[in-house]
Amino acid sequence: MIFCRFLAVASLTATLASAATIWPLPQSVSYGSSSVETPQFQFIGLSSDDSKNAVKRYNPLIFPHSVEQTVDALDILVTIDDEDAELQLGTDESYTLSVPESPSSNSPITITAKTQYGFMRALETLSQLVDFDFDAEAYSIEGVPVEISDSPRFPHRGVLVDSSRHFEPISTLKIVVDSLAYAKLNVLHWHLVDSQSFPFDSKSYPLLGKQGAYSQFERYSPNDVAELVEYARQRGVRVMVEIDTPGHAGSWCEGYPEICPSKTCTEPLNPSTNATFDLIEGLFKDLTGGQAKSGLFPETLMHLGGDEVNTDCWTKSDDISSWMDQQGFDEDDTYAYFIARVQAIAHSMGREVIGWEEIWNHFGTSLDPSTIIHQWLPGSTVGPEVTAAGYRLIWSTDGVWYLDGLSTTWQTMYEAEPTEGISPSSLHLVLGGEGCMWGETVDTSSILQTIWPRAAAISERLWSDKNSTQNVDVAEPRYAEFRCHLNSRGIAAAPYDNLIARNAPTGPGGCLDQRRRE
Amino acid sequence: MIFCRFLAVASLTATLASAATIWPLPQSVSYGSSSVETPQFQFIGLSSDDSKNAVKRYNPLIFPHSVEQTVDALDILVTIDDEDAELQLGTDESYTLSVPESPSSNSPITITAKTQYGFMRALETLSQLVDFDFDAEAYSIEGVPVEISDSPRFPHRGVLVDSSRHFEPISTLKIVVDSLAYAKLNVLHWHLVDSQSFPFDSKSYPLLGKQGAYSQFERYSPNDVAELVEYARQRGVRVMVEIDTPGHAGSWCEGYPEICPSKTCTEPLNPSTNATFDLIEGLFKDLTGGQAKSGLFPETLMHLGGDEVNTDCWTKSDDISSWMDQQGFDEDDTYAYFIARVQAIAHSMGREVIGWEEIWNHFGTSLDPSTIIHQWLPGSTVGPEVTAAGYRLIWSTDGVWYLDGLSTTWQTMYEAEPTEGISPSSLHLVLGGEGCMWGETVDTSSILQTIWPRAAAISERLWSDKNSTQNVDVAEPRYAEFRCHLNSRGIAAAPYDNLIARNAPTGPGGCLDQRRRE
Repeated sequence: MIFCRFLAVASLTATLASAATIWPLPQSVSYGSSSVETPQFQFIGLSSDDSKNAVKRYNPLIFPHSVEQTVDALDILVTIDDEDAELQLGTDESYTLSVPESPSSNSPITITAKTQYGFMRALETLSQLVDFDFDAEAYSIEGVPVEISDSPRFPHRGVLVDSSRHFEPISTLKIVVDSLAYAKLNVLHWHLVDSQSFPFDSKSYPLLGKQGAYSQFERYSPNDVAELVEYARQRGVRVMVEIDTPGHAGSWCEGYPEICPSKTCTEPLNPSTNATFDLIEGLFKDLTGGQAKSGLFPETLMHLGGDEVNTDCWTKSDDISSWMDQQGFDEDDTYAYFIARVQAIAHSMGREVIGWEEIWNHFGTSLDPSTIIHQWLPGSTVGPEVTAAGYRLIWSTDGVWYLDGLSTTWQTMYEAEPTEGISPSSLHLVLGGEGCMWGETVDTSSILQTIWPRAAAISERLWSDKNSTQNVDVAEPRYAEFRCHLNSRGIAAAPYDNLIARNAPTGPGGCLDQRRRE
Repeated sequence: MIFCRFLAVASLTATLASAATIWPLPQSVSYGSSSVETPQFQFIGLSSDDSKNAVKRYNPLIFPHSVEQTVDALDILVTIDDEDAELQLGTDESYTLSVPESPSSNSPITITAKTQYGFMRALETLSQLVDFDFDAEAYSIEGVPVEISDSPRFPHRGVLVDSSRHFEPISTLKIVVDSLAYAKLNVLHWHLVDSQSFPFDSKSYPLLGKQGAYSQFERYSPNDVAELVEYARQRGVRVMVEIDTPGHAGSWCEGYPEICPSKTCTEPLNPSTNATFDLIEGLFKDLTGGQAKSGLFPETLMHLGGDEVNTDCWTKSDDISSWMDQQGFDEDDTYAYFIARVQAIAHSMGREVIGWEEIWNHFGTSLDPSTIIHQWLPGSTVGPEVTAAGYRLIWSTDGVWYLDGLSTTWQTMYEAEPTEGISPSSLHLVLGGEGCMWGETVDTSSILQTIWPRAAAISERLWSDKNSTQNVDVAEPRYAEFRCHLNSRGIAAAPYDNLIARNAPTGPGGCLDQRRRE
């Protein structure tokens, strides 16, 4: 048993710091058969704080074991076209990384990137190329010369985090952001509020957080949000806020009951009073600063939810139903009216809006053409018709990329294809996708092992070339190593072959070789 | 429902930053009814790097939300007798903290301590006194004037971590160390190696790690160990290494089969050859530097295991059994001989030794009088006789303080009493205790939520006055808040009232109010 296991481990570890170990797989990579030792790197050519801070973060990640410096540090010549680029949808993340067979000051390692964010992706790749030899107590890059040319397949690659079903402290969200960047994911979709709690402190409508939060301390101050958004930006992660209306808003009534149909029937929010839309406008101003690219969330995309709207509370309310009669609205008209008014508020503040799939299913091409549709319904195949009509798509189908589906395997997530059935001429309308970490059963104690390592399967699908990443069996050793890579940085990624995603190991074992040791 | 729940939350949060919220409970604490606002603290009188680094760590923990400074920062006058004290068993951790009703430069907040480690305990207490008001966006100390005089009941308060059943990366162990200090625990008992794997790189016997680790990268270099030990020291946490022999050593045979009875029957280690003791001496030299208070583990206490010795592999081996005959040894004599020789090696390097309870049960008062007995057997009541014979005791009874017992509740851990049945004249021989986090089912993804929050119940039993901490119902709100306190710092402490310790929440809820929200 022991010898079999050790062989198994050897066969996996043999691939460390070889072509197979970079996750997600680069678009283009070639390796040689030499290796080069270095105790650290000297980065030449950096000018912006963003780039220098990225190097400060990555140095201890690339060289976690202190060693005696017996050879000189290798130079890395960095060329970045725009080192102070703005981070928005489509910001260039491409990079090249070239390691000569015998790097020297005359022919150094080179990294080129269009932006500081592409440089950050190069640093993550570099960190996965450097291997530590415990016997020699030395670092080396194996398989040189290495030539990598890389860029993401999709511009929008994210994980949704839900801070309403459970409050996730800023310190926890920072760890999530760190881990997203390790997998080259670039979006934190922040499902900020929902029916269960309203953890955000709105300056315009302070009772939302004061009354709607689970407790007086399970709240985010505006400064907390600003700090997290800047922390994420420095790591190349866009933070996109979601304010889900008219459903999923019951907690709003704790502070402002007048915007809800009744105390006992709280959602969808009351469409018949301007108080509702005044509050939404005030809240959006708190979040966006009231104009494009400003405020707590400079991100241009804003998610407005719009899902799972059950209109019973409208029809059960005499006031609302008589108002609907006056307007000549049926339930769907009222739902459409609400969505359109809220979209108009977001547009007035320079935001492009995203809505969950139901708004397409109800309103189709009557939606503003700039609307982005977020596909999520189980078994949904709405993508082709959405894109054929010229609308943009984000893909997160429940049962495939829902991380709260604990029995959804990484293989299922890996084999998913967001462009399924979409015509070549419409492929540019598929912005990407997100793994959705709904919060019903995740708090600080369980969120990271529920997200990881499965979100890595999503990250490779969204970053890497489709044709190079079709075989889960070929991917598995790299996937297993990426999980160990996350663990080595203190990220609580669960055993990679779990049938229930976040389960603890059932017995002793190694990180790669998880079989119980006799 | 919602209003009931909000009342429940209110009744708990009302105690925030009041007498009831400090965990573990101080020896002496008195509160007033006023409050004082401050945006930060200015510490006056610090001279050592240890103290200044502690302040650097605690400032963002005490003031996690950035605020506009509308009032002056309060001064804290610090007096530390010895700011460069050595950290060993019994190092003074006492402190006083006094907050006047109206602090000013003439009558500032004062902290006194005998050592920098006592000052660190004071900082943790201070961090639990400062409350953030989200509505006012301001920090305050409630219940002033505050007078606290505090010191630990027991000098040895620890958690055992097992890096053999699963490898725990240094980054993970650093998070564990951080969390121990938050609960005023002061010992990381590092069960470094065992039968399943040997993750330490011994310079004297390199094949131990090279062959015995789960993989080539699941190893600790000497520099890794030194870095963790220093990291822990700066937080007032002693790192005590355990090398468990003659049992629990099967992984040693991967590299050095000659010290094992046979390939198929690997432990207890072979007592009949000096090769075994030469290797142990070389390994101990690597760990201790060969003399007192030096090497990778300057800690004076060293744990030598000695538990669960099944001598079948000795009697099944012709070589070993014939050697036993020559010596006139039966199995127990041989076990005693092995323990005595290994203890002598550790003594020769200036270490005091600890052994698991079995060595007392087998050899009693024939053990060296300096031996410390680690009580662990389920239902064991060995403490009184051990201490009556003048031997020192560490308490960790299985079923009570074994953290791998997932169905052992925090209440059971809280109600435990290490001095049960011990005569007043022997109480000084009870050094304290440890929660034991055996590693069969804990890796990076599960260790923190298995340790926390239950280890906090152990921390209060070991730190606080026995008579003030007898009622679990009285403790529960504080215990719940301490769990939220850990979460707020990104520590993955599990829901506090779990029946299975580390389970994720079953539905939406708050940190204090974990009931599912309708």
